[in-house]
Amino acid sequence: MAIQPADGVDNLDALYAAAEELSLDALWRIAHKVLHPEPRPAMQAYHWPWSKVRPLMLRAGELVDLEHGAERRVLVLLNPGLPGRYGTTHTLVAAIQLIKPGEIAPTHRHTPAAIRLIIEGEGAYTTVEGEKCLMQVGDLILTPSMTWHDHGNESDGPMLWLDGLDVPFVRSLETIFFDPYPDERQPVGKPVDYSLRKYRAGHLRPSWDRPRGAGAPLLTYRWSDTATALRHLAEVELSPHDGAMVEYVNPHTGGYTLPTIGCAAQLLPAGWRGRPHRHTASVIYHVVAGHGTTVVAGQRFDWAPGDCFTVPPWSWHEHACAPDADAYLFVLHDEPILAPFGLLREEAQPGPAV
Amino acid sequence: MAIQPADGVDNLDALYAAAEELSLDALWRIAHKVLHPEPRPAMQAYHWPWSKVRPLMLRAGELVDLEHGAERRVLVLLNPGLPGRYGTTHTLVAAIQLIKPGEIAPTHRHTPAAIRLIIEGEGAYTTVEGEKCLMQVGDLILTPSMTWHDHGNESDGPMLWLDGLDVPFVRSLETIFFDPYPDERQPVGKPVDYSLRKYRAGHLRPSWDRPRGAGAPLLTYRWSDTATALRHLAEVELSPHDGAMVEYVNPHTGGYTLPTIGCAAQLLPAGWRGRPHRHTASVIYHVVAGHGTTVVAGQRFDWAPGDCFTVPPWSWHEHACAPDADAYLFVLHDEPILAPFGLLREEAQPGPAV
Amino acid sequence: MAIQPADGVDNLDALYAAAEELSLDALWRIAHKVLHPEPRPAMQAYHWPWSKVRPLMLRAGELVDLEHGAERRVLVLLNPGLPGRYGTTHTLVAAIQLIKPGEIAPTHRHTPAAIRLIIEGEGAYTTVEGEKCLMQVGDLILTPSMTWHDHGNESDGPMLWLDGLDVPFVRSLETIFFDPYPDERQPVGKPVDYSLRKYRAGHLRPSWDRPRGAGAPLLTYRWSDTATALRHLAEVELSPHDGAMVEYVNPHTGGYTLPTIGCAAQLLPAGWRGRPHRHTASVIYHVVAGHGTTVVAGQRFDWAPGDCFTVPPWSWHEHACAPDADAYLFVLHDEPILAPFGLLREEAQPGPAV
Amino acid sequence: MAIQPADGVDNLDALYAAAEELSLDALWRIAHKVLHPEPRPAMQAYHWPWSKVRPLMLRAGELVDLEHGAERRVLVLLNPGLPGRYGTTHTLVAAIQLIKPGEIAPTHRHTPAAIRLIIEGEGAYTTVEGEKCLMQVGDLILTPSMTWHDHGNESDGPMLWLDGLDVPFVRSLETIFFDPYPDERQPVGKPVDYSLRKYRAGHLRPSWDRPRGAGAPLLTYRWSDTATALRHLAEVELSPHDGAMVEYVNPHTGGYTLPTIGCAAQLLPAGWRGRPHRHTASVIYHVVAGHGTTVVAGQRFDWAPGDCFTVPPWSWHEHACAPDADAYLFVLHDEPILAPFGLLREEAQPGPAV
Repeated sequence: MAIQPADGVDNLDALYAAAEELSLDALWRIAHKVLHPEPRPAMQAYHWPWSKVRPLMLRAGELVDLEHGAERRVLVLLNPGLPGRYGTTHTLVAAIQLIKPGEIAPTHRHTPAAIRLIIEGEGAYTTVEGEKCLMQVGDLILTPSMTWHDHGNESDGPMLWLDGLDVPFVRSLETIFFDPYPDERQPVGKPVDYSLRKYRAGHLRPSWDRPRGAGAPLLTYRWSDTATALRHLAEVELSPHDGAMVEYVNPHTGGYTLPTIGCAAQLLPAGWRGRPHRHTASVIYHVVAGHGTTVVAGQRFDWAPGDCFTVPPWSWHEHACAPDADAYLFVLHDEPILAPFGLLREEAQPGPAV
Repeated sequence: MAIQPADGVDNLDALYAAAEELSLDALWRIAHKVLHPEPRPAMQAYHWPWSKVRPLMLRAGELVDLEHGAERRVLVLLNPGLPGRYGTTHTLVAAIQLIKPGEIAPTHRHTPAAIRLIIEGEGAYTTVEGEKCLMQVGDLILTPSMTWHDHGNESDGPMLWLDGLDVPFVRSLETIFFDPYPDERQPVGKPVDYSLRKYRAGHLRPSWDRPRGAGAPLLTYRWSDTATALRHLAEVELSPHDGAMVEYVNPHTGGYTLPTIGCAAQLLPAGWRGRPHRHTASVIYHVVAGHGTTVVAGQRFDWAPGDCFTVPPWSWHEHACAPDADAYLFVLHDEPILAPFGLLREEAQPGPAV
Repeated sequence: MAIQPADGVDNLDALYAAAEELSLDALWRIAHKVLHPEPRPAMQAYHWPWSKVRPLMLRAGELVDLEHGAERRVLVLLNPGLPGRYGTTHTLVAAIQLIKPGEIAPTHRHTPAAIRLIIEGEGAYTTVEGEKCLMQVGDLILTPSMTWHDHGNESDGPMLWLDGLDVPFVRSLETIFFDPYPDERQPVGKPVDYSLRKYRAGHLRPSWDRPRGAGAPLLTYRWSDTATALRHLAEVELSPHDGAMVEYVNPHTGGYTLPTIGCAAQLLPAGWRGRPHRHTASVIYHVVAGHGTTVVAGQRFDWAPGDCFTVPPWSWHEHACAPDADAYLFVLHDEPILAPFGLLREEAQPGPAV
Repeated sequence: MAIQPADGVDNLDALYAAAEELSLDALWRIAHKVLHPEPRPAMQAYHWPWSKVRPLMLRAGELVDLEHGAERRVLVLLNPGLPGRYGTTHTLVAAIQLIKPGEIAPTHRHTPAAIRLIIEGEGAYTTVEGEKCLMQVGDLILTPSMTWHDHGNESDGPMLWLDGLDVPFVRSLETIFFDPYPDERQPVGKPVDYSLRKYRAGHLRPSWDRPRGAGAPLLTYRWSDTATALRHLAEVELSPHDGAMVEYVNPHTGGYTLPTIGCAAQLLPAGWRGRPHRHTASVIYHVVAGHGTTVVAGQRFDWAPGDCFTVPPWSWHEHACAPDADAYLFVLHDEPILAPFGLLREEAQPGPAV
């Protein structure tokens, strides 16, 4: 093909105009916006105090009816830096859900995966693919991608929990699928807490179960197990940044509980003060117990039980626990999204703890 | 904690206002925008004819100087449905690069991975981590994430190639890192085409090389190998949708060449007409040889050598080849991004070929 | 090369003689010995009653001195069908070890991996690579391949345990390596029961520990955990052949605890009677608690606590528990050796339980 | 249980006698036979000259009839150090097979896997699971575990090849299964050389084939590809011990072609002399072309085309090529058997090449 440059394009402005007409742009004009030395995340560090969220949630319990209109009574934690993206971070979204006595949140399924972390109440359940999972405070319950699930409250008090989903990530990949179930409730075809009773001891598995790669065999992680593991770990090892910290894992693989959502828990000993670090993962914290302070890129969050707060990617952050009692944090993060692509990076600030 | 709903929030409007103040939103107001039955991709099917892109690229060769200002002389294919996102699809970006005799595109590295598919010219090279990879028309050359790379043209003619990168995906994860190299060129410490000579036969590997998981051992895939493989495959098997189609793989794992970018090639036999299908992966096509037609969700693209066009996720599409000669397509797709999360889905239209 | 058959070899006998001289043999003469329709194992089903083994072991405690001569006071269970092969099965060997108060079994390491299952006593330990693992009855303690290990008894009573090793398998591969340690004891550089405290909850792992493929992160499996897991499992699921049965797994991978030795435990409910099955794995059983009967290829073993017995590959066998109390079995098997090669096969006898 | 040592066992001899009666033995009496510092392999280094084997094989062609009696006309290379174990090494067996014009070696399958390396002739085939694989000199053809296979010779000359199987290893695990096929020949249901045409380019795979873990997708490896790969590799890298050496791999995994048998090929440049090393793998060499010398633990083998020789585990060995022409070796080894268990070990003799 002979060299025939475009006619009538005699200068850069003409070039840019001609390019735009063809849906082209010159890299040298935009490269600095796209390729910068370090991440410049749009999401912000932010803090949702439970003292303000809980009353609003309860009011929503009075004003909004599950049967008419709302499938789920949920307030979503929207990061102010991500308008229109419906995310608490750019990959994950957290929310508070309330279900009142006798209510049922009807059955559906979707490509986004979800977790619940029980905040208040007892006597409610999630049914996941025919298995009724009973909820106790602090428990983690999974509803993996495309599993049928519904919630119900058989107690006489309100039930409050934290929802965590990978909706922003699945949306960014344009792979949202959603199916309603023909009935309000799906049939329960397995013993109550079936997976908990089969797989609770992660270092022992039923001999007839060949480990499955992808699926999550264990749907419920009891808080009592998590708290015990954190205390045992704290006796022998602490991270300088995170205190005692355990990752919830899929007992069949040793990997993350869900392919897209990392779940972890931290114990910060009373009076403990961590050293700053930063990493490319984005994080949502939920305070299970205790009081403390987290400083994110110079911004200080004093947190109390029930609070949520976020840390953006590549932002320096440090935790400290109040002196009176140990603190327990539940943690949602997107490490499993970054890890397959070699995009996890971490940096610790040199020198002694501040 | 006693039940104390928020004071003064007596109706839904007051609830929404109070929520907004706390950076909360009611899921039942936004759920329909977020969770819909099927993907509603923002990106559009689009077609960039080489007959228009090439002259503009050559003019850019006259107007833009690599040494002053532009590190790379590149025109980016911007999808009209993704303003401000610098993507050809929501995850991948393609571009045309021109390098003139004697020019050097200086050394740098970045978290986004890149591939080149050589369109025109011979006698240029990419150096990747000390290995000089010579370019021949149709060759695929990889520069994996965070590998130092520079390009040079030692021939006496212009060199044109297709760039493919995962920039939109890496940006959406807020993990862009970029490093310039202290010098224009990095030292060449290995024999020319080292990896090609070591790993070209993918079913035989040097005995002393233990297969590495992540890294891409083979940097250059010669077009002559690809064309031969396509012809051999076409003798024994054709896809009803894609004709003969081969995926470029990492010979150490059998998996995708790069963790984020799928590269493939298709041979559509002369006169062949495929049946429609759709999948959740997004695709960028580049025509290596031949003429044909692709219909994407009712929109018809008649393509010729050098053209690029895209297919959005979950869009029905079908290919046909002109009767005179076989056509060869090079294909960039984001299957490797979707696969780890169970988000790959495909659907074939039932019935005979249209 | 022209066809020149061997001179002077005029009949089959001459051919066989000439072949033998060249260290050749005719396959058609030996094929029936080598390739038969089903396995013909050399090992035998066999039963070692604790009522006879224990007194002999205690006598050995009086007659044999750990400091002079014997590194380990161990009686090996030799399968009568495997003379000269030092195995309880063709791949695994079990033995009884006694260590008296104040004694030390000095430090060494070897390619064969080992496990201990504590039978009697409390207050002894195994130190593995600097970690002191305290022994309680029923505990499983691992000493993976090539880990330094020594045993000591700091109590005032005798300590008895079951040893299990892969010596016959490692010998069959001609890969026995053995190193003595310069001192009797290795230094203890970690907290007591370090790995137990870090990794006991298999579904939660320290966040800073990236899962390691091969190594065994958890060295001690407490019997109390195993018994609890078996009881929980028995509430929801039983194998028709094995009652409740759990496999000890590496919490970092969900796979077998050791690459060569499968460890499992069974609960046979009181009065329960299993159905016959057979498989290519060979098995060594050790009775932790309870009484029962196992019939192996028509041979009946009535077992009591402390007994050991074996089941050869591809032998029909069925278990039954006495009516008065649940029985607990500890199980050693070679499934992990067979699995990588696709050599696991299992068959259940059709029809109702006998 | 009270301490009650065995009555009447008053000295060591009485202890040993009582133990023997119970099928027990004292470890301290046998440990030195079992656990030694380094491997003491039973197999011997050995050499089978083609000049002697071939005439005998041809005579067998005259004396032995495939239709009456022998299913396969095969002379097995029996290691003199392994009487009764039917092995060339303790894990692998090699043999020479002859099939005359018009003959058919009938269809069967078995758990042992097999490979063929074609020595002489053209125009014969192996059919594996419905795929007819045509044989050319130097080709490697696989018959994985439990695949139906039969051989036929449609040429007018004798066909000679090397068989390699994992029979000794599968026997040592007591997992031999063998099935005859109802007919002499199985139906051919795929195009000739189907897998070769689909998978020959190991770095490109049909897009619709999801990589399968275990199975061997590619059944035929053409010698021309192997020789080319060895020559390209020799241009850029040589092992000090093995010259240019490539491992045949499963293109879907990058791992060994078969789970139990490692296949490799070496090019020793004319006049090249390697340095000694040793490893725990056992090896069978077959000379494809050229002349040279291998010294194994002081024993010298001068080899010529068609010869076979073995190297036992942990034996120092060194290769040298005659000065006139490059030599090509085909190599069978048991690395894939050792690797899953961490039992691979290698040691290079320090200092310059001898």
